[in-house]
Amino acid sequence: MDKLEKAVVLLSGGLDSTTLLHHVKKSLEANEVYALSLIYGQKHARELEMATWQAEAVGVKEHRLIDISFVGELLQGGSALTNASIPVPNLADLAENQLSQPPTYVPNRNMILLSLACAWAESVGARSVFYGAQAQDQYGYWDCTVDFVTRINDVLALNRQTCVTIEAPFADYSKAELLKIGLGLGVDYAHTWSCYRGKEQPCGACPTCVERMRAFEAVGLLDPLDRE
Amino acid sequence: MDKLEKAVVLLSGGLDSTTLLHHVKKSLEANEVYALSLIYGQKHARELEMATWQAEAVGVKEHRLIDISFVGELLQGGSALTNASIPVPNLADLAENQLSQPPTYVPNRNMILLSLACAWAESVGARSVFYGAQAQDQYGYWDCTVDFVTRINDVLALNRQTCVTIEAPFADYSKAELLKIGLGLGVDYAHTWSCYRGKEQPCGACPTCVERMRAFEAVGLLDPLDRE
Repeated sequence: MDKLEKAVVLLSGGLDSTTLLHHVKKSLEANEVYALSLIYGQKHARELEMATWQAEAVGVKEHRLIDISFVGELLQGGSALTNASIPVPNLADLAENQLSQPPTYVPNRNMILLSLACAWAESVGARSVFYGAQAQDQYGYWDCTVDFVTRINDVLALNRQTCVTIEAPFADYSKAELLKIGLGLGVDYAHTWSCYRGKEQPCGACPTCVERMRAFEAVGLLDPLDRE
Repeated sequence: MDKLEKAVVLLSGGLDSTTLLHHVKKSLEANEVYALSLIYGQKHARELEMATWQAEAVGVKEHRLIDISFVGELLQGGSALTNASIPVPNLADLAENQLSQPPTYVPNRNMILLSLACAWAESVGARSVFYGAQAQDQYGYWDCTVDFVTRINDVLALNRQTCVTIEAPFADYSKAELLKIGLGLGVDYAHTWSCYRGKEQPCGACPTCVERMRAFEAVGLLDPLDRE
């Protein structure tokens, strides 16, 4: 594979996108990495601190944090991630039928995020946008699937001058497999944040906390955020 | 055709989207119209005043104006529409090779606008987003083409609960045909704005001014904005 000249990485500061950032810089040896963090709710200030830390740690060319919290206002009662009055559920409390679209779903979120990342890529001359979709999110979010990425790329292929392609190299990996890759790359997971509730300590019960916990269990390690 | 219950209309305040707004409310008889105006540069404050006037004139359920001018910052030197230091060209000065992508092109603009409109549609329970693409923009902008709309709809079709579809009923119409439809619907074109330069009076020379002028000529009328 040719060395990447420039790449945009969508970086939330969570486990998946942080691993992706290190993968793009260290394994794919991208020369210039442009990290984009989009703030769209209030619960994730912790994630963004982590994103900033990680962007500095790998030495990106540029890290942009952009406030798109108007999305939360636009979607009003839309989602537990943007509306503080809708509680974030515990994974154990999610009914079977909610697994196909949990209350943490944000309408059309990933098309919004990717369209901005692709616009930035086009303007800095990067041909690739890296997106941390992984296999376990595909059950709940239609916009985390391989089909979704393929079809967005079909749209982008119409560009007459600068075609940008979305790459989702972890789309078939479980969180545990992803964690193994990141540990191999020396990622410091004490500086990542996954909990949807965004308090001082991870809650340990929301869907993303439970998935993170299981991933660390699967690789036989303790989560460095787990201080009890 | 069934009467539309709810519809989102992307409304810039220009000739095309204003005609579309009236078409959706009066011809398609949409019960509740949600008009969305997105501010992404500084040159179009006039357009937005017009959008507000037109939204009131047809009696929309809700009109949202959202400032996405961070897009202009993200794209830095990207486009004459978001960067005041890049001059808007006169149509007559555009070289042949610039016609396939003029300096007024904003990277991936329409995917950004449509992704936001579709998110809003999903959250208010509207199944249709109306988009004022017309035939004459297809030469210059890959993201104004029928193929573009078709492929975005292929992405949206993956949604597991609330499929939103983008409708571009004027995609095959010239600006003059569109103007005829609008005049038939009683649109007051004194309250629309097309000029890219956004001064007190339309400049009469930028690509959109020239196209507007030709459309009025083709229907044998004087543009009400043309006061000389």
